[in-house]
Amino acid sequence: MKRRLISELNGLIDEKVCVQGWVYKFRRLKFITFVIIRDRSGLVQCIVDNNKFDISEIGIESVVSIIGKVKESNNKLNPFELELEGIEVICKVKDELPIEVNKENLEVNLDTMLNNRILSLRHPKINAIFKVQNLIVSSFREFLNKEGFTEINTPKIVKEGAEGGTEVFEVKYFEEKAYLAQSPQFYKQMMVASGFERVFEIGHAYRAEEHNTNRHLNEYISMDLEMGFIEDESDIMDLEENLLKYIIESLEISGKEYLELLQVELPTIHNKIPRIKFEESINILKENYNKNDLKGDLDPEAEKLLCKYVKENLNSDFVFLTNYPRKKRPMYTMPLGEEGTHSFDLLFKGIEITTGGQRIHDYKRLLENMKYKGLDANNYESYLEIFKYGMPRHGGLAIGLERITAKLLGLENVREATLITRDRKRLIP
Amino acid sequence: MKRRLISELNGLIDEKVCVQGWVYKFRRLKFITFVIIRDRSGLVQCIVDNNKFDISEIGIESVVSIIGKVKESNNKLNPFELELEGIEVICKVKDELPIEVNKENLEVNLDTMLNNRILSLRHPKINAIFKVQNLIVSSFREFLNKEGFTEINTPKIVKEGAEGGTEVFEVKYFEEKAYLAQSPQFYKQMMVASGFERVFEIGHAYRAEEHNTNRHLNEYISMDLEMGFIEDESDIMDLEENLLKYIIESLEISGKEYLELLQVELPTIHNKIPRIKFEESINILKENYNKNDLKGDLDPEAEKLLCKYVKENLNSDFVFLTNYPRKKRPMYTMPLGEEGTHSFDLLFKGIEITTGGQRIHDYKRLLENMKYKGLDANNYESYLEIFKYGMPRHGGLAIGLERITAKLLGLENVREATLITRDRKRLIP
Repeated sequence: MKRRLISELNGLIDEKVCVQGWVYKFRRLKFITFVIIRDRSGLVQCIVDNNKFDISEIGIESVVSIIGKVKESNNKLNPFELELEGIEVICKVKDELPIEVNKENLEVNLDTMLNNRILSLRHPKINAIFKVQNLIVSSFREFLNKEGFTEINTPKIVKEGAEGGTEVFEVKYFEEKAYLAQSPQFYKQMMVASGFERVFEIGHAYRAEEHNTNRHLNEYISMDLEMGFIEDESDIMDLEENLLKYIIESLEISGKEYLELLQVELPTIHNKIPRIKFEESINILKENYNKNDLKGDLDPEAEKLLCKYVKENLNSDFVFLTNYPRKKRPMYTMPLGEEGTHSFDLLFKGIEITTGGQRIHDYKRLLENMKYKGLDANNYESYLEIFKYGMPRHGGLAIGLERITAKLLGLENVREATLITRDRKRLIP
Repeated sequence: MKRRLISELNGLIDEKVCVQGWVYKFRRLKFITFVIIRDRSGLVQCIVDNNKFDISEIGIESVVSIIGKVKESNNKLNPFELELEGIEVICKVKDELPIEVNKENLEVNLDTMLNNRILSLRHPKINAIFKVQNLIVSSFREFLNKEGFTEINTPKIVKEGAEGGTEVFEVKYFEEKAYLAQSPQFYKQMMVASGFERVFEIGHAYRAEEHNTNRHLNEYISMDLEMGFIEDESDIMDLEENLLKYIIESLEISGKEYLELLQVELPTIHNKIPRIKFEESINILKENYNKNDLKGDLDPEAEKLLCKYVKENLNSDFVFLTNYPRKKRPMYTMPLGEEGTHSFDLLFKGIEITTGGQRIHDYKRLLENMKYKGLDANNYESYLEIFKYGMPRHGGLAIGLERITAKLLGLENVREATLITRDRKRLIP
């Protein structure tokens, strides 16, 4: 008999159906037992006649295949229920479960949640996080496809590091030493130059950071885009504004049930996101919060305070910080004057969720900037090739998927928005 | 002035527009010069008055921004052309180009093509390969989303290898030794168990194979799916049949212009793909081609001959080989009798493009099969956890993206269908 999803049963009243799923809950009375079954589409109550079926040995979270008749009912879950006529146990659970997944809230700490990922993901509220995350990804993709972007997949085993930092994972690549890519920066620029003009990639990025924080992962999903034929970085900020509006609208339409379950209210973007120059932000922090210890960059506290200021004074959950200091930006960033750059960060509810900007497209200028940064151009030979054969003015940005998911949903730790975490201590599961 | 795409110009006759792109070709006459500009949407001819503009120093593939008036015309490219009124050179190309991209066919060998990837990708026929590849990915995704699958992203840095082989890349993960994932096998099974039931992943996979062949890459994109609540592997084959039909139909509709440019005719799937038992295929090869040297597996020649046989006798470009020998399949494969398995390969035009099958869902049976395979269960601790807390009958498959692209387009080498190749010798660009 063909398996039916629980969500289909409402249209099948009085019919005999096959339902398959996990045993979510039992309530045993003298003559009958109520069993709630869960499949990917929902929950359904089954009525079991204790005289006909002995199901006392089937544990919670066992996998079963049930034959039953759909009956009208007014139980808490649905306007229907199932009268059990047959049951096959596909997988019997004997061990006691390390966490209880059939409570309204999964009341376990983060470590327990991640150590028992198979089970914690079964909880509707945990599962909903990843349904929302999927909508973020699909609306990001949809928006960019409409804007003429091409999706790309670029290598994660690389010889040259884009960010020039030391926090890279080393890979033994046959006789050679290679690294895991910290970002697809070079490759997305290459694909702009290759005539795709506008490209995006949703893929893994790697940072061998030693510190365990609630904001960082050692392996994460970076949503990257790069765009040719811009005037300057303001085109990228305009694009991101519209992109974020599109994502938020998509979540409000397609993610309604998950947002309600998680009791989340999404931020609104009123027309434009405020744009504040980096230097001005330093002054704001000094004048309003007496924060005088900043040296050319914002620390986590400063990001929080600035977002507080913007929320209170400009009524926005988002703020662009523009004209970041040249000293703090990678060598590919387009300089602005001697000390500034055509680059920006986007802060959201106290944390940076995007870094972006215009890149250098002129070969000579790039060589000069490598020198300024103290880098040896010989280490970037294949990257430099891009700029010899016709490169448009271009720019781009990256959004960390887990981080934006966590911030949109008000989750404290980015790991809660990560299916399987890789951090300083987690290499399994 | 706002940039217009060349594809928009037909609706802007007699208007002054800004077009930006690469200089594709020149034809210099005494009084005028014809310049062809290329952007991501196409080619357009511009007429330059030599008395007004000196463009003699602008090389082929330079990036320019042009102001011009759109005029009706009957040139080879379009029913319109541009009268140049202003030109800005965004990026001047001075060096001689290592390959010519403005010929009808890019007549270079594979190495030259890959060494000059930025340029070779600018050629319309090379670019088209990746437009088709994108359609393969998007139709794969679209079909599975419609079928209730959830897209997942799982770790590529792993502690436990799924395939049990030795061909893995080693990563230094802080104090620990880790590997690059050969497949998302364990994680997709985990996500089935986590209640998603049906999952797919389009992501990187790594094989540290020493041999350079035209069919293998060391880093490639694997399109993986895994599906719970099946009866057996025939559900997976049914799904793949429909999936492939959907992909081919999508390509025929949305990829028409690329297929015509590449002069490719796609295969047709007539209703069902033939299913032949592995053992039967050995007999077919013996009887028809006198191929007697096979020992429990097909070699590349055998795959080719079998496809030839199926094409000639069953009129199909595809064939499922079922009931693969247990000895040749990984430990998670559901056995069938003592020597067989519930698993299959899909061959297409002489090569395997999919391996799939039903997996073991019973904890004890999995332990037994690990023993049969000579594996130490202690090395698979976190994987084994999946089977303790309720696992449905399930199965899945994987399709190599570059390989299926290459075979569908009749490309000889899988590298031609790879944006940036990672193989035994290629770590850059």
